[in-house]
Amino acid sequence: MCKTSVLSVSAAKAPFKKSTIERRQLRPDDVSIDIKFSGICHSDIHSAHGDWAGGIFPMVPGHEITGIVKAVGERVTKFTVGDRVGVGCYVDSCGKCEYCLRGEEQYCAKGYVATYNSLDYEGNPTYGGYSQNIVVKESFVVHIPDGMELDVASPLLCAGITTYSPLKRWNAGPGKRVAILGMGGLGHVAIQFAHAMGAEVTVLSRAKNKENEALRFGADHYFSTLDPETFNALAGRFDLILNTVSASIDVDLYLSLLRVDGTLVNVGAPAEPSQYHVFSLILSRRSIAGSLVGGLPETQEMLDFAAEHGIAPQIEVIRAEQVDEAYERILHSDVRYRFVIDISTL
Amino acid sequence: MCKTSVLSVSAAKAPFKKSTIERRQLRPDDVSIDIKFSGICHSDIHSAHGDWAGGIFPMVPGHEITGIVKAVGERVTKFTVGDRVGVGCYVDSCGKCEYCLRGEEQYCAKGYVATYNSLDYEGNPTYGGYSQNIVVKESFVVHIPDGMELDVASPLLCAGITTYSPLKRWNAGPGKRVAILGMGGLGHVAIQFAHAMGAEVTVLSRAKNKENEALRFGADHYFSTLDPETFNALAGRFDLILNTVSASIDVDLYLSLLRVDGTLVNVGAPAEPSQYHVFSLILSRRSIAGSLVGGLPETQEMLDFAAEHGIAPQIEVIRAEQVDEAYERILHSDVRYRFVIDISTL
Repeated sequence: MCKTSVLSVSAAKAPFKKSTIERRQLRPDDVSIDIKFSGICHSDIHSAHGDWAGGIFPMVPGHEITGIVKAVGERVTKFTVGDRVGVGCYVDSCGKCEYCLRGEEQYCAKGYVATYNSLDYEGNPTYGGYSQNIVVKESFVVHIPDGMELDVASPLLCAGITTYSPLKRWNAGPGKRVAILGMGGLGHVAIQFAHAMGAEVTVLSRAKNKENEALRFGADHYFSTLDPETFNALAGRFDLILNTVSASIDVDLYLSLLRVDGTLVNVGAPAEPSQYHVFSLILSRRSIAGSLVGGLPETQEMLDFAAEHGIAPQIEVIRAEQVDEAYERILHSDVRYRFVIDISTL
Repeated sequence: MCKTSVLSVSAAKAPFKKSTIERRQLRPDDVSIDIKFSGICHSDIHSAHGDWAGGIFPMVPGHEITGIVKAVGERVTKFTVGDRVGVGCYVDSCGKCEYCLRGEEQYCAKGYVATYNSLDYEGNPTYGGYSQNIVVKESFVVHIPDGMELDVASPLLCAGITTYSPLKRWNAGPGKRVAILGMGGLGHVAIQFAHAMGAEVTVLSRAKNKENEALRFGADHYFSTLDPETFNALAGRFDLILNTVSASIDVDLYLSLLRVDGTLVNVGAPAEPSQYHVFSLILSRRSIAGSLVGGLPETQEMLDFAAEHGIAPQIEVIRAEQVDEAYERILHSDVRYRFVIDISTL
């Protein structure tokens, strides 16, 4: 066991406080990581605020983790001390089911162990990346490519893979028209991926003042969803709409922007139910789908792809004591586009 | 112009009466068909009852048409007098858009001309198969395979293609677990197609007394949806659920029966909106989709496939004067499984 400093909340909506927790003794297949940066994901806020059922407190959020390997267990083969590494949204899975065996551990039949606010398979709570150190089984750790800064890499571990995986699965690429709905932490990375994959990229965002930034990220077109003319102009246009917005949307209205065989893929989820008319699907053989982060092999592939194509989240690095303020700013959409905690300030 | 006897309704919910209409003069690419049988589709009832907006009266329903070629236009190449032929849900499309060019005329960018209750591209109303004769452009006519009776073939023109097309598109086949939701006019044909394609087929039906028939149609398993234990027993089981039910369903409940990457495909549509929680999609990368009949090449393929595999709708042949009664019986789910009008009684 090894004490480590963390930022934790003692109960739903409590402010963050510095405290210490114990990380487990290094097992033979474990990697101990000195955390350098931890991104702030919107789901951290939902979890810390107790918006979702089953919050485990005290809670140490954070699943966009980058750092340096401090020690490795005796059976570890992929990492050595000093390696630049990352950890994403989960830290264990059964390793035996068909999904684990094909590298899609996020759909593990037993249920994966989330990086925080979860119980591991021994029943112990997991604590995330707002922390100076974490101990993780090596198969749930990825390499940060050379030349990619650890702070910039951090949001790729969740926002990156969450958007890369569905873009790839639904064939964003040359000849395809892809809309990215929402231009926040996920959306601004999704634009870069879809552009690098070769798709024609349109951004759909409420904001009327983000067009220049969208184009800089690689978008070909930008439309405000507050302009009703947008929906006439774009009717039947897209092969794929990647919905990065967690708020409820008018599903039928967005389906009307899809071509025959087009798909609306959701990666954010409102708490309330969504509504659609089946005719919106039938008349053009459209689909509504959802996608959850990505597997470990795909996460490594995504990082390598990002490095190769110069894809980088636009971040604002903050000090540990600014996390409460950062949460407030996120809730007011006042972030361009991802906060990353400098763990050296913890 | 050529007079022909029809069964028509003069207004929404009016009873059927024998009357006459004019069919157009044979054009160079037209086929004139003496209709022998016309199936009764549930959408005939919705149309004749004015359930959907825009009903055109007087109305002659019917889009499950089989008959014998009586005459052909001078440029017709695929048909000769005496051929056994069929006509389905639409009788014209633009012929130029990408969908028409790839044989998916049901998604024609201009909008197809429906077999009845529609306006053709000259603005004239179309009249369907409850009629002794119909004149149709040859590219919208299919051959009924040798050995397939015209009465049995009739429901394949709508119920058959509506289920065959999505089963094929979503890869029903060996190693796939397919559920057919609803065992009526569409469902009982879908079971046969899915079985012939090599899938493991489960029928989900409210009825508790249709199991033997389901197994006879080729189902491997049968579960009543009125038994709550059904949903526990089948959780996460299916690659594909083909929903042939037009009534509203509990979408989240049926999504829970899908495996990772499974799809719920709707071919029937309730008038009211459907509800789902996005988490039901995200957590297992599931999809909700819809599918509309099929294209002309696929309709011919479906008929040939049915002939090859001995697939046959189970029909009850009725006389012309029984149509009102048949409508009533359909509304009371009192049909196994499709009424077909013997047009010689008209």
